[in-house]
Amino acid sequence: MLCIDRLIERIIKLKAPIVVGLDPILNNIPDIYKRPYKADTDSIETIGNIFFDFNKDVIDVIADYVPAVKPQIAYYEAYGIPGLIAFQKTVDYAKKKGLIVIEDGKRNDIGSSAQAYANGHIGRSSNLSNDKKLPLFDVDYITVNPYLGSDGIDPFIKNCDEYNKGIFILVKTSNDSSGEYQDRQLQNGKTLYQLVAEYVDEQSWNRKGKYGYSSVGAVVGATYPEQATLLRSVMKSSFFLVPGYGQQGGSARDVLPCFNDDGLGALINSARGILYAYLDEYTEADVSKAQFCKKVESAVKNMRDDIVSCLRENCCGIRY
Amino acid sequence: MLCIDRLIERIIKLKAPIVVGLDPILNNIPDIYKRPYKADTDSIETIGNIFFDFNKDVIDVIADYVPAVKPQIAYYEAYGIPGLIAFQKTVDYAKKKGLIVIEDGKRNDIGSSAQAYANGHIGRSSNLSNDKKLPLFDVDYITVNPYLGSDGIDPFIKNCDEYNKGIFILVKTSNDSSGEYQDRQLQNGKTLYQLVAEYVDEQSWNRKGKYGYSSVGAVVGATYPEQATLLRSVMKSSFFLVPGYGQQGGSARDVLPCFNDDGLGALINSARGILYAYLDEYTEADVSKAQFCKKVESAVKNMRDDIVSCLRENCCGIRY
Repeated sequence: MLCIDRLIERIIKLKAPIVVGLDPILNNIPDIYKRPYKADTDSIETIGNIFFDFNKDVIDVIADYVPAVKPQIAYYEAYGIPGLIAFQKTVDYAKKKGLIVIEDGKRNDIGSSAQAYANGHIGRSSNLSNDKKLPLFDVDYITVNPYLGSDGIDPFIKNCDEYNKGIFILVKTSNDSSGEYQDRQLQNGKTLYQLVAEYVDEQSWNRKGKYGYSSVGAVVGATYPEQATLLRSVMKSSFFLVPGYGQQGGSARDVLPCFNDDGLGALINSARGILYAYLDEYTEADVSKAQFCKKVESAVKNMRDDIVSCLRENCCGIRY
Repeated sequence: MLCIDRLIERIIKLKAPIVVGLDPILNNIPDIYKRPYKADTDSIETIGNIFFDFNKDVIDVIADYVPAVKPQIAYYEAYGIPGLIAFQKTVDYAKKKGLIVIEDGKRNDIGSSAQAYANGHIGRSSNLSNDKKLPLFDVDYITVNPYLGSDGIDPFIKNCDEYNKGIFILVKTSNDSSGEYQDRQLQNGKTLYQLVAEYVDEQSWNRKGKYGYSSVGAVVGATYPEQATLLRSVMKSSFFLVPGYGQQGGSARDVLPCFNDDGLGALINSARGILYAYLDEYTEADVSKAQFCKKVESAVKNMRDDIVSCLRENCCGIRY
């Protein structure tokens, strides 16, 4: 089954077009996860262990409610090799629990360097005897930055085809300054992000799976609903990965333009709004694991209900 | 001493405005580095060990000739955690040998994610007790992709100031398709890469060190000399990291526009042209370590002499 179809079938089954960002921020992780390691406060390895213990509990809670997780690799790279070991363990554990893993890596380079990234994250690398290739990080999807042009994206798409993986190409990001370059109008009247969207669309139309969507998707921020409306019409067969809901200011109504009438076409991300929901009632010092997990669970259910009820009101052909 | 001044003083001392890309490609590494591990051909760890053994010999040969090395992290990520351990060991060894380390990571994200990348690569991350921050990858410079706008770059610049590090922002890259987005003309007549260049210039002018250059630099490909001429006039106080010399088709004459009359302002990169120079005379199977090292040494000296003699002919105020 195509990577995108597997994602869509999980969305339909769980009635949840949402993804939880696994962004561990040391200061915001409950003390209860840190206490076992308090004797060893200077070691980076302990922080990697804390990240994984924390993620594992989050994954156990959310695996029944969401189709996918999106670890942001920056938070792991912030702790070097031990952080990246926690990233790898998180990826492996999430996959074991049936979750689809979208690595937010925003990787980009050219030619053989882009191919090396693609192999490491969504492919395989040669082993020493060259007759067997090894899977490494082996996530299901990765985000890709398009600034270098198609030379930088094609190796990732090649691996999507070869290893049944997917990518989300940055088109219009959710941040305040995303317009500085992305919104610039070109001499043909189009914006830069429209140009990138046209490339994504070209790569998508002949890669459609059984639901009409391709494994080559786009990142489109929840904070720019007008641009999302336009982009939905340009990239008809692309799935959108949508950051910016919740803490970044996007509401269910704001993400609506990212969806098609089938209630598909978009996967809405929230990280801090789920992981650190407990901070509206507890502090880092006083929350128990049970209380923390309960807050994660209710936050993810609230997010799902918020978005799905908005979809039911507005999409006439919703599939779930 | 400012990060950029340390780089410039090494360039002047060695009379070598060049950097060697440490891009280990398993198929191209001489068999002599693989033989000790032949019993264990399926392990990724052995490949990490091979990469480091190979890089260590290269570093030992080039440390007397070049001011800096540029490991492309994609080639290490291609081998997951063991690859990244080899990356870290390479960074540490190169620094121990007095080399400045420029990580070619093309990292990019927004807000706290960009800050996390900056902390992990060119900064420090909080430890568990929060009273001491830990250096992680701790390279001297990192390359950064600007597609997300200033939100995505400012955290890296903040770390440059706080930890005396440097960045090179992608402006005009060396690949064939770099024009697809970067060369697009905007409605004000400027190209996208000019707009990025103006941002780099703004960030540079008040960060100048004793030679008039800033630690906020730009990536400008050797393969586009006309654009480089324009960019040299826009980013007066920025150093250029210049890929594309040698194997990618750029000559000494092509990189000339990246330099100022002081013979400074640019650092020319070559990776395959140095690391795999031995393949013009030997094969992977039959080269000895001594023969391999000799070829690396002569390739790096030839590159230096090629560029410096071209600079002497053309720069009237050369400082070395």
